Amino acid sequence: MRLWLCFCISMILLTSTCKSKEETASSEAAGLGIDLIVEGDYVVTMDELGTVIEAGAVAIDKGQIVATGKAIEIHERYVAREVITGENRIVLPGLINGHSHAAMTLFRGIADDLALMEWLNDYIFPAEVEFVDAEFVRVGTELACWEMIRGGTTTFVDMYYFPDAVAEVVVACGMRAFVASTVIGQKSPDAENAEDSIEKGLQFIARWQGRNSRVTPIFGPHANYTLSEAQLRATRVAATQAGVPISIHMSESPFELEYSKATFGMTSIELFDSIGFLDGPTIGAHVVWPTDTEIPMLANRKVGVIHNPTSNMKIASGIAPVTAMLDAGVRVGLGTDGSASNNDLDMWEEMRLAAFLQKVDRMDPEVLPALTVLRMATSGGAKAIGLGDRVGRLVEGMQADLIQVSMDDVHFVPTYDVISHLVYVTDEQDVATVIVDGRPLMRDGQLLTIDTAKVTSEAQDIASRIRASLFKK
Amino acid sequence: MRLWLCFCISMILLTSTCKSKEETASSEAAGLGIDLIVEGDYVVTMDELGTVIEAGAVAIDKGQIVATGKAIEIHERYVAREVITGENRIVLPGLINGHSHAAMTLFRGIADDLALMEWLNDYIFPAEVEFVDAEFVRVGTELACWEMIRGGTTTFVDMYYFPDAVAEVVVACGMRAFVASTVIGQKSPDAENAEDSIEKGLQFIARWQGRNSRVTPIFGPHANYTLSEAQLRATRVAATQAGVPISIHMSESPFELEYSKATFGMTSIELFDSIGFLDGPTIGAHVVWPTDTEIPMLANRKVGVIHNPTSNMKIASGIAPVTAMLDAGVRVGLGTDGSASNNDLDMWEEMRLAAFLQKVDRMDPEVLPALTVLRMATSGGAKAIGLGDRVGRLVEGMQADLIQVSMDDVHFVPTYDVISHLVYVTDEQDVATVIVDGRPLMRDGQLLTIDTAKVTSEAQDIASRIRASLFKK
Repeated sequence: MRLWLCFCISMILLTSTCKSKEETASSEAAGLGIDLIVEGDYVVTMDELGTVIEAGAVAIDKGQIVATGKAIEIHERYVAREVITGENRIVLPGLINGHSHAAMTLFRGIADDLALMEWLNDYIFPAEVEFVDAEFVRVGTELACWEMIRGGTTTFVDMYYFPDAVAEVVVACGMRAFVASTVIGQKSPDAENAEDSIEKGLQFIARWQGRNSRVTPIFGPHANYTLSEAQLRATRVAATQAGVPISIHMSESPFELEYSKATFGMTSIELFDSIGFLDGPTIGAHVVWPTDTEIPMLANRKVGVIHNPTSNMKIASGIAPVTAMLDAGVRVGLGTDGSASNNDLDMWEEMRLAAFLQKVDRMDPEVLPALTVLRMATSGGAKAIGLGDRVGRLVEGMQADLIQVSMDDVHFVPTYDVISHLVYVTDEQDVATVIVDGRPLMRDGQLLTIDTAKVTSEAQDIASRIRASLFKK
Repeated sequence: MRLWLCFCISMILLTSTCKSKEETASSEAAGLGIDLIVEGDYVVTMDELGTVIEAGAVAIDKGQIVATGKAIEIHERYVAREVITGENRIVLPGLINGHSHAAMTLFRGIADDLALMEWLNDYIFPAEVEFVDAEFVRVGTELACWEMIRGGTTTFVDMYYFPDAVAEVVVACGMRAFVASTVIGQKSPDAENAEDSIEKGLQFIARWQGRNSRVTPIFGPHANYTLSEAQLRATRVAATQAGVPISIHMSESPFELEYSKATFGMTSIELFDSIGFLDGPTIGAHVVWPTDTEIPMLANRKVGVIHNPTSNMKIASGIAPVTAMLDAGVRVGLGTDGSASNNDLDMWEEMRLAAFLQKVDRMDPEVLPALTVLRMATSGGAKAIGLGDRVGRLVEGMQADLIQVSMDDVHFVPTYDVISHLVYVTDEQDVATVIVDGRPLMRDGQLLTIDTAKVTSEAQDIASRIRASLFKK
């Protein structure tokens, strides 16, 4: 007992010398030496109970969370090589962007306020044919990762072309991502046709499976209006053979629904179900128009649904029945979609819009409360994409993907309820610190893994060429 | 001709020496000496044509805009005592927040995700009874003005209690405001009953009319569900007698509509019309539920309608027919409502939500395009509140209320269309400079007229008392 007391006192003394970020603890020999402690006035764990720890801390070692608790207790138990202090900071899990086309940041705001087909046919498709190559994807993805890290996103699910370029950027910048090799039934920037894209996808997956724990290669069949039934079946077979999930646009728009009924004689989700497409892990992006019978089926099949409220509103796809899906037990996460239809990668705005849109659509201010929405962006989003046992909650054994939000801005004065503030007030610019696998990617708003000046210059060069070409027409 | 050439050259030479903020021009004797030139890579004038001037500038003297044009031409014509340079900056009119309850910043996030009556009866009304006094209003309004200036708002229409305290803060911080004396049919923090509040309102107006060009005292009858027909009539008589506009909640919620039909046998707008309430200048906040016959009437009566999309979504009031109102010629502006139902004073978010909500509600991505929304927050908002000939456009003769938005943030890379970026991407934190009546209120993000540390401390003190009282129950 006396020994324990001595030990505690020595730990307290040690701890007090560890407050400085730069100092190194002297005694790993004590057996409780760890890599990092991240403190916060509030630690929002997003565990099952929604526990918020005031004056809390997260203890991190070898990329994983070893404990979460009161800061004073964490410092009693552990001596960290580095401490990130938490005055006026909220600590929470990194945000999970479940659906994006990252490199489309380079098309941000290229055309707005247009009907979908005019937007696609007159702007996006011509621009993609002319400009999208591996270098475009590298620069656009780096720009997107910069924006996502800056805004507190630690994991994203991407669907675009030249997936090797995307994966390499993810490795370099330190984020976590599902990187899809896109399968589409037409000539694309990186394949001749659907069959070619499936073949190239299998090669991409072979190159990346098991190569880096932060990169999960997946298949990204585009949609049932750009692929035949045979091509959809072939993609599922290839994904199952490779043992990877699928991400696909699913029941996004009235156009898709009408096309599906006219072409296949059934809805998109009925089609997917009927051909065994949902037999393996599937991430369905959008899912705006599921029927009442399809919603429980999505729950039973454990389909991860990614809600993209900004995109669904901006290009008028419709209002997804998020409340009904959650009530039925569907795994629902949040995503930004690409910057060409958003026009940014701001997960805070997606949270707010998800809540606001359900409330006004249902004419009930009680639906989709703040904590539920925050779950969709963290633990729920992780579960939706199949990472629920690795990220999204600040509990022991999870990978250390977490962020600090600064409460220094005027809109945090005063703060009665930290969960409310995260959902209804916080902006991307409030994020101070971003950590993935225990490694800081941003500190005090400074990006540590991305050369922002270089990316800006490269992005502006590509944008100049796009501007010169597209707007002269 | 030769003389003119010499003059131009000398102006160019003089101009080049004026680039430094601190330098003073040497020759007002030239006759073209002015107070201030504000430059921008883009000057978004919001004139009738929506003119955007690249590499532009605004020339300001004695609080007014004397010219807007290419920066090089402005510098040829004028020598300013101060130049605010505009590299990577967008200059546009200051934003106009047409409906707010500024001091409610102190109740920001006090309770969310609740049904309206529970929210009002269990949280807002008890908190107001217990805490709202002149000091609360002073501190809360100062906090709100800080947040509004930071986010680029230069004019706001306020409805709360203790209007003298509000007006004094407005004078001190340099903003422009319509300050309403609230009339409500129950005991309020600053009056015994409706009659007392009308009497006190008249006294407030007498004190403030003509006292400061930036403060317009007005009447703020709360709503037709908190006032009798006689009280509404009496308020209109008093406002007409005093020669001031009225701001009132109008057709906000299904509750209001049902109450109005049950109590008066007609809708809110029918009631207002039938008792001559709209005969004088009226600002109607919300107007979510106007009928097809009421919409043209609102246009004919020149009622200024303030759309509050965040509040309408968050507390599930409904979706206002903004597109239909604009098509009918109604003067529509934008507002944040109070921070208790928002939970911030972010006009950029109101712009985005206004566009997104109409697009998805109408299932048409072409409605409410970016320029139309930006008009609602600037020139259109000014017109809606009766200030269309003084602010909201960067043209000669208008008061110099303008802002600079910094394009330094990652979400401005790249920028194809500056109007699109202002509406779909810009956050409060991007605002760099705020000027009202030619006077800078914020430079490089630094507030110049508000002691932010003092306000923070005062606000936190009040919040501590609210927290201790309200959450112990």
